[in-house]
Amino acid sequence: MNDVINTILNHRSIRKFQDVPLSRDQIITIVESAQMASTSSYIQSYTIIGVKNPATKSRLREFSGNQSYVENNGHFFVFCADLQRHKLAGDMENVDVLASLETTEKFMVSLIDASLAAQNAALAAESMGLGICYIGGIRNEMEGVSKLLKLPEYVIPLFGLAVGVPAAETEIKPRLPLENIYHEETYQQNKAEFKDQLEEYNRVISTYYQRRTNGKRSDRWTEQIANMLKTPKRTQMKKFVQQKGFMKR
Amino acid sequence: MNDVINTILNHRSIRKFQDVPLSRDQIITIVESAQMASTSSYIQSYTIIGVKNPATKSRLREFSGNQSYVENNGHFFVFCADLQRHKLAGDMENVDVLASLETTEKFMVSLIDASLAAQNAALAAESMGLGICYIGGIRNEMEGVSKLLKLPEYVIPLFGLAVGVPAAETEIKPRLPLENIYHEETYQQNKAEFKDQLEEYNRVISTYYQRRTNGKRSDRWTEQIANMLKTPKRTQMKKFVQQKGFMKR
Repeated sequence: MNDVINTILNHRSIRKFQDVPLSRDQIITIVESAQMASTSSYIQSYTIIGVKNPATKSRLREFSGNQSYVENNGHFFVFCADLQRHKLAGDMENVDVLASLETTEKFMVSLIDASLAAQNAALAAESMGLGICYIGGIRNEMEGVSKLLKLPEYVIPLFGLAVGVPAAETEIKPRLPLENIYHEETYQQNKAEFKDQLEEYNRVISTYYQRRTNGKRSDRWTEQIANMLKTPKRTQMKKFVQQKGFMKR
Repeated sequence: MNDVINTILNHRSIRKFQDVPLSRDQIITIVESAQMASTSSYIQSYTIIGVKNPATKSRLREFSGNQSYVENNGHFFVFCADLQRHKLAGDMENVDVLASLETTEKFMVSLIDASLAAQNAALAAESMGLGICYIGGIRNEMEGVSKLLKLPEYVIPLFGLAVGVPAAETEIKPRLPLENIYHEETYQQNKAEFKDQLEEYNRVISTYYQRRTNGKRSDRWTEQIANMLKTPKRTQMKKFVQQKGFMKR
């Protein structure tokens, strides 16, 4: 196993950081790493906002459901889908690009682009001994986050990435059985087998929580997922996304 | 610089592979690496289809706009957004999860999840000396790809990842100026500065193409982007995505 695979397989989310800011060099290396991810037809349709200001972090924490590590970390990155500079490119070349920018296809491209970049950033940080935690919670308040970070049209915040020196060790969380995620040639058609895999996974997860909490928790994965999906959340998303110019058609 | 950052910064897309299939061990390592990416609230909302069958690869090549490396590679992965197993989790727990699965929020979650996983897969492959190329072209024919790979409802193909032993070296393509992608505290508000950055980048890209093609090409980035965005593409995407159960609300 090489260092890259070792770093990848040792990932665990860190939710407690020491009070040590990232250095300028660390930040630059993380951003340069993000930029080297593949990008659809060279479009580079994302922007990263780096947040140090304690007041801004504190607001982001409120927006995200009051998770302390959104405020207390070494640096906070917000990854945004961004088609703003492509609108400008159109203006510079006297080409009307809006009908294209506003397609669902380009919405997908910008989400994929931003996410590939973010995972490079996450791994670069982890390879330097830093810990990371993705923060989907910023999507609770898309309007609030957008105003706070002064995001123009054709830009939407997708998720945060808290980075810092870990203050507490956490365990690796077991993933779905490989054959549940990875299918050969065509999608796995046998529903009974699929269900068996999830039940096997439920046992793994239950045991994991029991051990981690000294018997206090024993959630099954399907139980967690069903509970999470019982009530639709962030139901204003479609409207927000379209107001910002994405996915109109 | 460590091996992880070195691998990340040395990325270039490979479009010509030797006729050497990936070993079972290589495939498993790549998929296990994909699985260790962060996932929103543990949802793991993606599936990877591994394709070896030459007839299937040949069809995928046709769908993707006849790029030879879609057919000729060491292994072809198709990354899919997948909320099917979450529907099953709901069934297993007697909870109706459809209203939640069909939100734009969960569409975004599944795209982000799949992309984080894919970038881990890409880096794991590159760290083993393999080359990779993402194939957005499979989105030309979402229906065709879905039928070919027998994808059920709540599953859509997002992109391919061609992996194999490189047969030709390629150059690293220069990215946008860092300060164009990375903003501090709030979104960069100075439009003139933003435009200057793109013009500076145009000069870099022009020089890059001139050198690479012995003067035959000298495209500017804004020119490439404007040309690409002149005409909307994949305009049936929204309808297709919604037919599959995603982003209905």
